[in-house]
Amino acid sequence: MIIKEVGYNKENYAHFGTKFLIGNGYMGVRGTPEEYTKEYMPAINIAGVYNLAAPDKWRESLNAPNPFFVKIAIGGTELALPDATNKVLLHEQSINMALGIHLRKTVFKTQQGQVNIESRRFASMTAHNILALEYIVTADFDAEIIITSGIDGNVWDVNGPHFVRHNIVDGEIMSVEGVCDNGLSVKTLEKVEIKGNLKSQSVIKEDKRILRALTFAVKKDEQCSIKKVAYVSTSKDLQIAKKTSDTNFLSLTYDELLVAQTEYWKSFWVENFVTIEGDKEAETALNYCIYSLQIIAPRHAKALSIPARGLSGQVYKGAVFWDTEMFMLDYFILNDIGTARTLLKYRIDGLKGARIKAKQEGFDGAFYAWESHENGLEACTKFNVTDVFTGRSVRTYFMDKQVHISAAIVYGLHKYTSMTGDFSILADGGLEIILECADFYMSMLSQRFSHRQDSDRVGKLELHDVVGPDEYHERVNNNAYTNRMAKFVLEYALEVLKKQTATSVSQVEKNRITAYKKKLKKCIEAICQPRTSKDGVIEQFDGYFELEDVSVDEVRSRLKDKREYWGGSNGVASTTKIIKQADVVTMLALFKNEYDIQTLRKNLEYYEKRTEHGSSLSACMYGLLHCYCDSVQDAYPMFVKSAAVDLVTPSKLWAGGIYIGGSHPASWGGAYQMMVYGFAGLTLKQTKKGITPVLNPRLPTHWKRLAFKCSIAGKRYNINITNKKHSIKSAKYKEK
Amino acid sequence: MIIKEVGYNKENYAHFGTKFLIGNGYMGVRGTPEEYTKEYMPAINIAGVYNLAAPDKWRESLNAPNPFFVKIAIGGTELALPDATNKVLLHEQSINMALGIHLRKTVFKTQQGQVNIESRRFASMTAHNILALEYIVTADFDAEIIITSGIDGNVWDVNGPHFVRHNIVDGEIMSVEGVCDNGLSVKTLEKVEIKGNLKSQSVIKEDKRILRALTFAVKKDEQCSIKKVAYVSTSKDLQIAKKTSDTNFLSLTYDELLVAQTEYWKSFWVENFVTIEGDKEAETALNYCIYSLQIIAPRHAKALSIPARGLSGQVYKGAVFWDTEMFMLDYFILNDIGTARTLLKYRIDGLKGARIKAKQEGFDGAFYAWESHENGLEACTKFNVTDVFTGRSVRTYFMDKQVHISAAIVYGLHKYTSMTGDFSILADGGLEIILECADFYMSMLSQRFSHRQDSDRVGKLELHDVVGPDEYHERVNNNAYTNRMAKFVLEYALEVLKKQTATSVSQVEKNRITAYKKKLKKCIEAICQPRTSKDGVIEQFDGYFELEDVSVDEVRSRLKDKREYWGGSNGVASTTKIIKQADVVTMLALFKNEYDIQTLRKNLEYYEKRTEHGSSLSACMYGLLHCYCDSVQDAYPMFVKSAAVDLVTPSKLWAGGIYIGGSHPASWGGAYQMMVYGFAGLTLKQTKKGITPVLNPRLPTHWKRLAFKCSIAGKRYNINITNKKHSIKSAKYKEK
Repeated sequence: MIIKEVGYNKENYAHFGTKFLIGNGYMGVRGTPEEYTKEYMPAINIAGVYNLAAPDKWRESLNAPNPFFVKIAIGGTELALPDATNKVLLHEQSINMALGIHLRKTVFKTQQGQVNIESRRFASMTAHNILALEYIVTADFDAEIIITSGIDGNVWDVNGPHFVRHNIVDGEIMSVEGVCDNGLSVKTLEKVEIKGNLKSQSVIKEDKRILRALTFAVKKDEQCSIKKVAYVSTSKDLQIAKKTSDTNFLSLTYDELLVAQTEYWKSFWVENFVTIEGDKEAETALNYCIYSLQIIAPRHAKALSIPARGLSGQVYKGAVFWDTEMFMLDYFILNDIGTARTLLKYRIDGLKGARIKAKQEGFDGAFYAWESHENGLEACTKFNVTDVFTGRSVRTYFMDKQVHISAAIVYGLHKYTSMTGDFSILADGGLEIILECADFYMSMLSQRFSHRQDSDRVGKLELHDVVGPDEYHERVNNNAYTNRMAKFVLEYALEVLKKQTATSVSQVEKNRITAYKKKLKKCIEAICQPRTSKDGVIEQFDGYFELEDVSVDEVRSRLKDKREYWGGSNGVASTTKIIKQADVVTMLALFKNEYDIQTLRKNLEYYEKRTEHGSSLSACMYGLLHCYCDSVQDAYPMFVKSAAVDLVTPSKLWAGGIYIGGSHPASWGGAYQMMVYGFAGLTLKQTKKGITPVLNPRLPTHWKRLAFKCSIAGKRYNINITNKKHSIKSAKYKEK
Repeated sequence: MIIKEVGYNKENYAHFGTKFLIGNGYMGVRGTPEEYTKEYMPAINIAGVYNLAAPDKWRESLNAPNPFFVKIAIGGTELALPDATNKVLLHEQSINMALGIHLRKTVFKTQQGQVNIESRRFASMTAHNILALEYIVTADFDAEIIITSGIDGNVWDVNGPHFVRHNIVDGEIMSVEGVCDNGLSVKTLEKVEIKGNLKSQSVIKEDKRILRALTFAVKKDEQCSIKKVAYVSTSKDLQIAKKTSDTNFLSLTYDELLVAQTEYWKSFWVENFVTIEGDKEAETALNYCIYSLQIIAPRHAKALSIPARGLSGQVYKGAVFWDTEMFMLDYFILNDIGTARTLLKYRIDGLKGARIKAKQEGFDGAFYAWESHENGLEACTKFNVTDVFTGRSVRTYFMDKQVHISAAIVYGLHKYTSMTGDFSILADGGLEIILECADFYMSMLSQRFSHRQDSDRVGKLELHDVVGPDEYHERVNNNAYTNRMAKFVLEYALEVLKKQTATSVSQVEKNRITAYKKKLKKCIEAICQPRTSKDGVIEQFDGYFELEDVSVDEVRSRLKDKREYWGGSNGVASTTKIIKQADVVTMLALFKNEYDIQTLRKNLEYYEKRTEHGSSLSACMYGLLHCYCDSVQDAYPMFVKSAAVDLVTPSKLWAGGIYIGGSHPASWGGAYQMMVYGFAGLTLKQTKKGITPVLNPRLPTHWKRLAFKCSIAGKRYNINITNKKHSIKSAKYKEK
C-alpha cells in the first residue's frame, strides 16, 4: 500500500506532482516537494470553485495559497530543490495509501555533513478544509538551521493569475487571502507547533506570501521540527458544502488530526481493499485507483462532481466531463452511494445550464455542457486547440457537436437507479433530466423529405453533424455510439414514464403523458441503425468505411510536430480510419447483450488495430469488451494500462499545443469497472427478492484470487473468486 | 479593338500568356512568344479532352504539341527570349480583336546591327483544328539567319506529364503525336511555306520534338519568312465535334485561312460589337470580354462546355463549373443560341455523372459535378487545397457540399427557355435534368422530428451541411442562396410539369405526375426561409450573425503566409463574417423582384463591406445589385473590375498553395450581364405577341451612348440608349 519513488530528477516535477497527489474531495494537494514555487506546479486545487482571470482566457478552477511551503537553510546556505540538486544524497517520495499520508525524505550533503529532511502531510478526511504537515530536520553535525515556512499566495495557474490582490495577516494564526476581481476569494490560515531549540524567529511579509523564519541551534542528530495545521476556505464554500469545519480549526491539533486520518483510512480499506492474489503489481495499481478516486470524491458537498483531471490541477479547466458518469460513477455506486448521489445531484443542478445550451444551439430540452462548471455552465469554447504551426486557435467541435454527453448523464442515472434500487433521485430532479434529454435528441433527429434509392434510411430518423467519443472525426452523421445512446435515452424515458404511477395526476396530464409516450415510441422505432459491412463490422459513422485505411504508425509518421492535434479538420487522423479512442467498441461494451459474440469479436478486432488510444478512456472499454469476448489475456494489458495510467510516465502531456497533464480518474474508474464487470463478471439479476448480483468470473490466468466488497441495492456483499470457485456473501453495509 | 503591351518583362509570362490568348473553341493558344519552352507556360490547350497522368495527380485537360515553336539565330548566336532579354530594343505584343489575330514584334540589338521579328498567328474560326502562323525576320545588315521552327511536344503541364511517348514523323508534313498511357493521343501536324533566300535546311529530331532549321542568306532589310499551317487533333475528336476538317488540311493555305479569319471576325463584330460612347476604356474592355468568350465558345461541338479558366491552360483541371450557367450563358443566349444549346447539351450528357455522384453521396436524383469533366464526371477531389504550413492536403468540401451546382444548371435551362422561347431542349433531356435535380434536393431536405422552442423552423424543411457560393464558410445549414435555389428548382419543376400537355400519357402516368406535383408543392411550401435581422439583413446561413465581425483588412492581417487559403476549417476568414464572394447578394440579384428596394439596399450595404471578393465571380453580382438599387456609380467600378479582370495584372495567382492563374470567362460574362441587365436594364415581358424585351436604362453618368444587338425569342434586336432616350428595333437575326 505504498507508492514510492527513490531518487531525484528535476524533470519529473509535472508527473510526480500528479502521482503523489493527496486530497480529501474538497481539495487536492499536488505531490511536489515543500520548497517548490509556482514554476514547478505545486497546487492546492479546490473543487468546484471557478474564476475567469481575463476575457481572453479560460475559466478554470482555483488554486489556494499554499500553506505547505517550507524551505531550510544551514549556516546561511539554502538547501532547497531543485537548486540544490547536486547536493542530494537521497530523495524519496511516497504515498502511504493505508494511512492517506504523503511522505518525503531528502538527505542533502553539505561541507559540514549531512542534513536530513522528513515530512508527513495529509489532507484531512475528517475535516474537509484542513491540511496538516509535519516537517522534521536533523543534521549529523552541530548546526544552525533555519526553517522558513508559511503561506505562498503566488500560486501556479494555467490561465491565471486569478488573484488581483492578496490580503495578508500576521500573528499566531497567519493567513493569505487571494481575491479575484469579482470578489471571489480563497483564504488559507495556518498555525504552527514548533519543536526544537529555537533561538529566534522573524516574520517575512511579501506581496503575495507571508513566511516565518525559525532559527534553531541543534546539536548533531537532534531534531528541530514544525507541525502545521492549515485551514483552506473560499467565499463560495457555503454554496457547496453540507457543513464547514472552521469553528474546529483553532482546537484541532496535528496529532489529533493524524489519528483521525489513519483511523479513517484503516476502516476505509477494510471495506474497499481489492485483493488480487498472484499479481501484487496489479493489486497495488488498482488500490491506487481506489485511493485516488476516494481522495477526490466530493463527500463534503450536497451536489458536486469530479473534474476530468481530478483535483490534480487546472488542466481542462477543472471542468466535469462525461468521464464521471461513464467511467467513475460505477465505483461510487458500488461503494459509496452518498457520493454517487452527490455526483448526480450536480447534474440535476446543471439542468439550468443544459437548457440554456440547448436553446443556444437551436435544440429543445437539455444539452449538457461538454466541460461543465457550476450550474452546468459550459466551459468549453469553440476554439479548443491551438494550431502548432500558426499559433492560431482552431475551431473545434467538442462543445457543440459532442451531443452524447446528455445521454451519458441519463445513462448514469440509469446505472444508479438500477444498481442501487434507489429511485428517489428521479423525483428529486432525475426524471426531469431524462425527459429534457429525450426532448433534446428528438429535436436533433431529422428525417429527409424524400428517399428513393437509399433504401436503408427510408422513413428513418437520422442524427447528423455530431462528434462521437472518437474526437478525431468531427461533424459526422449517424455515429453508431451516439445514435444508440440517443435511442437509449428515449427508451429509458419511456420506461420511467411507464413506471410512473402517480394517481393524483389529472386526466389532462394523463393524456399529455400518453401522447408523449407515443411520440417517444415512434421516435425510438425510427432511429436509424448503423450500417454494417458484409462481415459484420459496424460502421462508426456514415462514410467511415470510405476513409483511408492506414496504420496508426503510418498516421503518426505524418506528424510534422509531435504536439500536433491528430483530429480536427486538418489533423493527420481525420481523413483516415484511425480513431482516437473506443467508439463502436464502447457501444458494444455497453449494449453487449444486443449482439452475438461473433459480432463483438469481429468489431473488437477491426477497431482495435485502428485505435490510437489517444485518450485514457479508451483502454478500459477495449479491456471490458475483451473480457466479454472471453479474450481475458488481451484484456489484461488494457487493465494494467488503465490502472497504472498515473503510476508510469505519462505519455501525452500535450494536445494541439495545450498542456493536458494531470491525473486520470476516468481511467481509474475504467480499471475498476474492468475488475468488477470484466474479470469478476458481475451482473445483476432481478429476482423475487429484488436485485441480486451474479458472477461470471474470467480471471487472468496468473491471478490466484480476486476478492472485494460491493453494494447492490442497499446490501453489501463479500465477493471471493479463485480459479476454482467463487462466492457472493452478504457483508455489513457501511454508508460512508 | 487592339489590346497591346509595349516593352518586355520576363516576369509577365504567366499574365501575358493569358491576356493575349487566341483560340477558336476547339483550342486556346496562350500568348507567349514563339520561342518559349515549357518553363514559361506556352500551351495549345484542348477543350474537353482529359487525362490522368498518375494516380496521385489530378485529371486535367490536355495541351497539344506546339506547332508555333520558332526561334532564330544570327551568325551562330541565338536571339531568343527570355535569354536575350538584355538585347531587346523593342517588344510589342497585341491582339487585333477586329481580325482575331495575335501580333508580336521584337527588335534585337546585335553587334552587327538590329534584327526584327514580326509574327502573326491565329486559331482559325472557320476550320477548328487549324492554327496558322506567319513569322518574318529582317536585319539591317547582311546576315545569315537561321529560323528554327517545328513542333514542340515537350509541353507544359500542371499535373503532367501526360504523354508517355511521342510519335514523331519527318517529311514535308511533320508531326508530333503525344500518347498517354491509356492510348489517348494528341497529334499536331504542320506544313510550311518558306520565303526568302534559303541556303540550306536540316531537320532536328529530338525525343519530344521535331524542328526544321532553315538557313537564309539575306541582304540588309531583306525579309526571310515562314508561313505555317498546323492541324491539331485528338483521338477523341469524333466523340465531341460535329465534323472535323482534316481532309481540308492539305489544301488549305495560310493566305486563304487569313482571309477567312478576317472575314469571320468582321462579320462577327457587325453583330456583336458593343458601343459605349464616352468611355473608350470600358468599351474596349467589354469587347475584349466578348472576343474572349467567342474564342472559347465550343461552336464545333454537339455538346461541350467552357472551363472556368476558359482555354488558357489546365488550371482548375480544365473543368467546367457553375461559372458557365450562372455567368457566361447569358451572353450566348443573347447572341449565339447554337452555342448556348451546346453548353446545355453538355449538362444533359452529364446527367450520367450527376446521378452517380448523387448516389455516392447518399442522395437521390442528380448532383452535378463541382468540377465537371466529360459525361459529368466529377474532377474535384475531397482534398482541394494544400496547407502551406505542413504541405499536406486539406479536406475541403467544394465537391461534396457545394450542392447549389445542380440548381445552377436548372437555372441555366430556365434562362435558356424563357429568353429564347425554345422549349425543345426540355424534350431533348432538359426536363430530365430538372426533375432529377428536384429529386436531389427533395432527398437532401430534412425535417426535425420534434420542435418546441425554435418556432420559426417548426414543420419546416431544412437544407443542412452545405457550402454556399461563399466558400470560406464550409458545412453550414440553411444557406440563404442555396435554399432559395433549391426552392427554385422545385418551382421550375412544378411549372414545367404543369405545362406538359402530352395527351398520349396513360392514366397511370397521369396519376404519378399528379402525385409528384403534390409532393413538389408540399416541399416548396415547407422549405425554410433564411432568418432576418430586425433591420432586414438576411442571415447568410444559420449562425452567421454570431461570427466575429471584423474588417477584411483585419482578417488579411492575420495571414501568416500570403498563399494561405482564407477558408476551410482553419482559415482566417472561416470564423469571421468575412465572405469570399457574393452569396446573399447573388440571391438578391437573381430574385430581386421578391424584395423591396430597402431590403436590397440594406443587404448590399451590409455584405459589401464584409466581402473579400476573393473570386472573380463576385464583383459583377454586386455590380448588378447596385444597378437594381439605382446606385449606378457604385456599380461602375464593379463593371470595370469584371470586364478588365484579365487586362490588368492578376491579383491572385495562388490559393492554398495551388496555382489558380488563367483567364476569367465568368467575369467576362458577368460584365456582359451588367451591361445588358444592369446598365441597359433589359427585362423580358410576356405579351400577346410573345416574349419581348423592355429597357430600364441606368447608364453611368459619363456614358453618352450604349448600343448593342441581342436576340430574344428568336428575334434580333438593335438596342440604342442615350441619356435622353432609348430604343429597341428589330434587326436581322443571324444564327452563328
